[in-house]
Amino acid sequence: MDPNSYPKDCFKKVGVLGATGTVGQRFIVLLSKHPSFKLIKIGASSRSAGKTYSECVRWKQSVPIPESVRGMVVQECVPEYFEGCDIIFSGLDADVAGEIELSFRAHELAVFSNAKNHRRDEQCPLVVPLVNPSHLDLIPHQRAHHVHPTTQKSMPLSKGFIVTNANCSTTGLAVPFKALELAFGPIDRVFVTTLQAISGGGYPGVPSLDVLDNVVPYISGEEEKIEWELCKILGAFESHPPKIHHRQAGTPENLKCGPIHVSATTTRVPVLDGHTAIVSVSFADGHKPTPEKCVEAFRKFGTEARTLGCPSAPAEAIHVHDEPDRPQPRLDRYFQDGAGVNVGRVRECNVLGIKFVVLSNNVSIGAATSSVMNAELAVAKGLV
Amino acid sequence: MDPNSYPKDCFKKVGVLGATGTVGQRFIVLLSKHPSFKLIKIGASSRSAGKTYSECVRWKQSVPIPESVRGMVVQECVPEYFEGCDIIFSGLDADVAGEIELSFRAHELAVFSNAKNHRRDEQCPLVVPLVNPSHLDLIPHQRAHHVHPTTQKSMPLSKGFIVTNANCSTTGLAVPFKALELAFGPIDRVFVTTLQAISGGGYPGVPSLDVLDNVVPYISGEEEKIEWELCKILGAFESHPPKIHHRQAGTPENLKCGPIHVSATTTRVPVLDGHTAIVSVSFADGHKPTPEKCVEAFRKFGTEARTLGCPSAPAEAIHVHDEPDRPQPRLDRYFQDGAGVNVGRVRECNVLGIKFVVLSNNVSIGAATSSVMNAELAVAKGLV
Amino acid sequence: MDPNSYPKDCFKKVGVLGATGTVGQRFIVLLSKHPSFKLIKIGASSRSAGKTYSECVRWKQSVPIPESVRGMVVQECVPEYFEGCDIIFSGLDADVAGEIELSFRAHELAVFSNAKNHRRDEQCPLVVPLVNPSHLDLIPHQRAHHVHPTTQKSMPLSKGFIVTNANCSTTGLAVPFKALELAFGPIDRVFVTTLQAISGGGYPGVPSLDVLDNVVPYISGEEEKIEWELCKILGAFESHPPKIHHRQAGTPENLKCGPIHVSATTTRVPVLDGHTAIVSVSFADGHKPTPEKCVEAFRKFGTEARTLGCPSAPAEAIHVHDEPDRPQPRLDRYFQDGAGVNVGRVRECNVLGIKFVVLSNNVSIGAATSSVMNAELAVAKGLV
Amino acid sequence: MDPNSYPKDCFKKVGVLGATGTVGQRFIVLLSKHPSFKLIKIGASSRSAGKTYSECVRWKQSVPIPESVRGMVVQECVPEYFEGCDIIFSGLDADVAGEIELSFRAHELAVFSNAKNHRRDEQCPLVVPLVNPSHLDLIPHQRAHHVHPTTQKSMPLSKGFIVTNANCSTTGLAVPFKALELAFGPIDRVFVTTLQAISGGGYPGVPSLDVLDNVVPYISGEEEKIEWELCKILGAFESHPPKIHHRQAGTPENLKCGPIHVSATTTRVPVLDGHTAIVSVSFADGHKPTPEKCVEAFRKFGTEARTLGCPSAPAEAIHVHDEPDRPQPRLDRYFQDGAGVNVGRVRECNVLGIKFVVLSNNVSIGAATSSVMNAELAVAKGLV
Repeated sequence: MDPNSYPKDCFKKVGVLGATGTVGQRFIVLLSKHPSFKLIKIGASSRSAGKTYSECVRWKQSVPIPESVRGMVVQECVPEYFEGCDIIFSGLDADVAGEIELSFRAHELAVFSNAKNHRRDEQCPLVVPLVNPSHLDLIPHQRAHHVHPTTQKSMPLSKGFIVTNANCSTTGLAVPFKALELAFGPIDRVFVTTLQAISGGGYPGVPSLDVLDNVVPYISGEEEKIEWELCKILGAFESHPPKIHHRQAGTPENLKCGPIHVSATTTRVPVLDGHTAIVSVSFADGHKPTPEKCVEAFRKFGTEARTLGCPSAPAEAIHVHDEPDRPQPRLDRYFQDGAGVNVGRVRECNVLGIKFVVLSNNVSIGAATSSVMNAELAVAKGLV
Repeated sequence: MDPNSYPKDCFKKVGVLGATGTVGQRFIVLLSKHPSFKLIKIGASSRSAGKTYSECVRWKQSVPIPESVRGMVVQECVPEYFEGCDIIFSGLDADVAGEIELSFRAHELAVFSNAKNHRRDEQCPLVVPLVNPSHLDLIPHQRAHHVHPTTQKSMPLSKGFIVTNANCSTTGLAVPFKALELAFGPIDRVFVTTLQAISGGGYPGVPSLDVLDNVVPYISGEEEKIEWELCKILGAFESHPPKIHHRQAGTPENLKCGPIHVSATTTRVPVLDGHTAIVSVSFADGHKPTPEKCVEAFRKFGTEARTLGCPSAPAEAIHVHDEPDRPQPRLDRYFQDGAGVNVGRVRECNVLGIKFVVLSNNVSIGAATSSVMNAELAVAKGLV
Repeated sequence: MDPNSYPKDCFKKVGVLGATGTVGQRFIVLLSKHPSFKLIKIGASSRSAGKTYSECVRWKQSVPIPESVRGMVVQECVPEYFEGCDIIFSGLDADVAGEIELSFRAHELAVFSNAKNHRRDEQCPLVVPLVNPSHLDLIPHQRAHHVHPTTQKSMPLSKGFIVTNANCSTTGLAVPFKALELAFGPIDRVFVTTLQAISGGGYPGVPSLDVLDNVVPYISGEEEKIEWELCKILGAFESHPPKIHHRQAGTPENLKCGPIHVSATTTRVPVLDGHTAIVSVSFADGHKPTPEKCVEAFRKFGTEARTLGCPSAPAEAIHVHDEPDRPQPRLDRYFQDGAGVNVGRVRECNVLGIKFVVLSNNVSIGAATSSVMNAELAVAKGLV
Repeated sequence: MDPNSYPKDCFKKVGVLGATGTVGQRFIVLLSKHPSFKLIKIGASSRSAGKTYSECVRWKQSVPIPESVRGMVVQECVPEYFEGCDIIFSGLDADVAGEIELSFRAHELAVFSNAKNHRRDEQCPLVVPLVNPSHLDLIPHQRAHHVHPTTQKSMPLSKGFIVTNANCSTTGLAVPFKALELAFGPIDRVFVTTLQAISGGGYPGVPSLDVLDNVVPYISGEEEKIEWELCKILGAFESHPPKIHHRQAGTPENLKCGPIHVSATTTRVPVLDGHTAIVSVSFADGHKPTPEKCVEAFRKFGTEARTLGCPSAPAEAIHVHDEPDRPQPRLDRYFQDGAGVNVGRVRECNVLGIKFVVLSNNVSIGAATSSVMNAELAVAKGLV
């Protein structure tokens, strides 16, 4: 892929599903400042449909509703209303996202979803834009093997597809792990404890009585997502036949990278935005890189998104902090608009090889920003 | 030791050093309700000396200053003022505790210290009362080999000694680890991430600008304390010659328990009281007990403190929670007045054998309550 | 009424409605320690009915569920199940409390309600137990004029009645206002700004995203409650015919106390328990008592609840703090188990006569404790 | 004064005193984005002098230290080092600001101070830039009557002067009060309760143990500042002889505006940035404007700073919110970069005429932004 293939005069019409929700609001803020994506349609539940956006949204962002969106009329999430959109961003809740996204794809719409429903689908790439954009190459295969969601008959597509991004807590881990694997080969074991922000739970989400002056050492389903999604994202993309090699236990021996054994504990802490992860890793082939070598690997980690000229790609995919008490959510989550990942406290681990602390902005790179960057990558690769 | 050897009609006169500080205030609350310890002297810095307690303390407890202490005159921390005390509790800051405690011991006073200064002293037991009260048997040896702090001459003691308790974050770990070692043999590797309360930093301690809506992934010196202190507390007490076998790397092979390799990361979270620890462990001899077996080991773990009838010993040294989202600091830190330890989420670990969550009240079992219970143990054992 | 008329050997059987909710949980904690009330029945929604309490409650208290209640089977809130109860405490939500409480009264049950539904009913006393227990004298009149809720026919009662307690924020104001009116005559104007705890909103209640690092300057319906309820609680009880004189604008001139003009603004702050109120008052007849005189009035304020020997009545109805930075929710809300009211910063006001700060525990004296104390008063007065 | 008199090609060299402190850091962030002020010198205590900025600052902003400042060498706060600066911003602490600022003025430097020391000086304007820029006209008079701080001899100045800005909590009140006075004449009585952010206390400032899950109903000296400063800021500027008419009790009757009687209670709440104020006001001549009229007055309030084209002047000096639960610190404090003031809940007051809620960003318009805007005003008026 040539550098700077992101088209200079790019202009794409965009729709947002689940526009009144937490992730949807974030999409709207991002798109209001985007150089080449123009928001033209917004969808939400039938309860909101027909009202203007400002009438039905409970806006919770620290910037006002963009003027151009205030009076926009909310539509139901049916594909007919969104014809003409080049790109659909889905911030839908998981209880409705599955079917709606399938119906949009079947109508030849390009869907970039933040929901978990299709992440495990073998045809759907699960893409952290700073990590595995090559998995987007599965899209032509996805189109060719498309089956209509209601008739269940084969129905190849020319434009429609679904791309998902990862869980917010997975995303922050995948980026430094990719940097380490590039430098030192496959990771085989991981310890991770997360201290996750309340915004990860949506709105109304976490009751204040549960989290003020408190830690909840459990987030339903979250540990499984981390353990499973990392294996897909960091898996190899094999192009003949097009397939993502998931690094699970049964990995054939002739593949370069075996399974990642992840032990995750996820907790909720009284922080608004920004997931902190305490991480230790070891490498499959016994590599024991020094902390200095790891810092070097983090710092030199470049991304295809940046090389291709994607507008939302951060200058530093990984920003390494030297101060012993960083990164901190409140101080570091907005650096580069939350599009990169912060790493600090890189040091030896008495049990596995190396340990460090990761901070990622769960509502930016951990959610809406990833979807937007995935769409930019798809544009740069000529898939949209 | 016979059960219930704690004397029924016990009455001991008590002094508190560092009485105006965070730990000192906690000592005063505990002693105001204690059945056999009576507070008669309080000491603080020369700035406070000569004033009444209520004049010089910035009281931060949720119960009022005990009436009997309000008008008590604060003394300087010199041993002469504290003659007649059977027991001295030290809540002094580390920058002054070292010398003052030595001078008190040299004056034949029995010092139970919450400060870190003498924890690494080979002659001083480092006792978590629910874990290693047998280490108190070092006291006669400590007395016999006492050297005067200023003259440096040998000066055997008949009553004086120093006993320290552990760092607040170490204490919460040592209790379940002891229960596991009793059931399954020596632990060899430990992963721990702590989410520590702000009260662990004293007063004024952690600035609110550092911790509101934030996590600080670093507490100076804390990780080293956990890694080192666990090896002393869980080390074997050898009685001929009296010695505590520290489980460090150079452990001779003929000893039953080798070193514990601990990888600790300590963080500060916006919680008032109660340290949460996310823990994984493996056993030296390859034991892989099921979660159910571990829960059983936690539940049946009995303590010498309870057997001996110590008034502050909790009915349950370890309370195991069955709900998936417990223990939580706000809900569980005051159970049994914070004298026990809470454990939950006991489950298999993909990397080491078993993992679980620990919650301990850092100002109770993690600090003043441990000192008080250590003193009760010393009384029961006839050492005071 | 004679002092100490609370019967020494009192034993009353008690039921709690809405037992799984926030206020219901608090009733259960209080009753587990009560010397003369024994909990025998618990009611909740049909969703919970038939299950044991521990199965269906999301317990949020810092003490465990009382052992005697864990296995108790939850009933639907129909009066037949609660026959045999001398006292019913209602912690029901307002959307169902109205009809259920009427049906319980019609079944000759004595209902003490924390809900707002019947507070404005002319037949129902609205009682802050430290302020206006004389309003309970309306009960015989309420019984005599009882109308069956469904048939709408007259149906005098011999035992049934409904007594309500006030909104949590009103309660904290009524106590010091009563003390001031006793000393200096009727109050005519009041400024009050409240800083209310999140527990006032129930569970799940206030979303954490709304209140962490934030203030919400509005609580729906709360300002109206304060402005209206104060006028009823501080109104005169006229015994022929039995009637509560509400101090509204149209007060006839021959009555001793005219209307109270209250300007209230209520806000939500990130505090778990304890409502703070910033208050200024002026007196109808131009009295301008000094701060010292007001402090004296607060300190000497005695309550009928205490005189009668009610077990839950606090020793100090009003505790006045001398320190300039008190009362504070975290430090003062648990004093006397939250059964009294804290006052501080009593000083001159540049606009009205006098100003001060009030702190009251909204889940204790502001809710369940008030209902319990009201029931104790009814027992002492021979009404139960 | 002509519109747009702020010079298009303006370029001023700037120094910052107290550059490592909370307000100093904010100055540095603002100046790094300023179109016409260029930071060339930074000063701090002798402890920091000689080090680079990044070596000695404990940076607490959510954006990184500007690259151009990282390596800048910190100077002691002596005027010789700052020769060549057109403008000096002082973020010094009050314990040193008084003398240092005098010495800078005596060296013909133009000082814009955030410290309280010279606010009550009759020669020094106390300027809220959105309210009383006309008070800057006192500067020539200040210069003419300058007395050397050490020799105490008359020493007229040609360039030096001191302008102060107001306390952070005063500033937020002065803006809507000015709008109301312009529309309805002098305000005579004010009730205000503030809920102030912790950043108002500097760093380390408020201990977390004092404010987490808590409200502190007292901030030392703050209520007096509000009550006094409002009277100076909203006082009339009389030009012959140049003088600021402070609206105190002894106001001569022939002056248009009499004293403002302010009753203030200031509290600290667990909010990072943004002071909320609950306000009621009445007018001297008995005006009782409707809420609608007040909203209109707020919305049409224009500022000289905007008219003159000052780069930091907000488009809306007062932004009125229509939603009943706004403004809120977390959602509204960053609107217009915190350079304007937010008002909401405008409604009738049962005691005084009108009440409303004000939110102002205490670190922006409440501190550094005000100083910067004052300097811009001085530039536009040809005083720098």
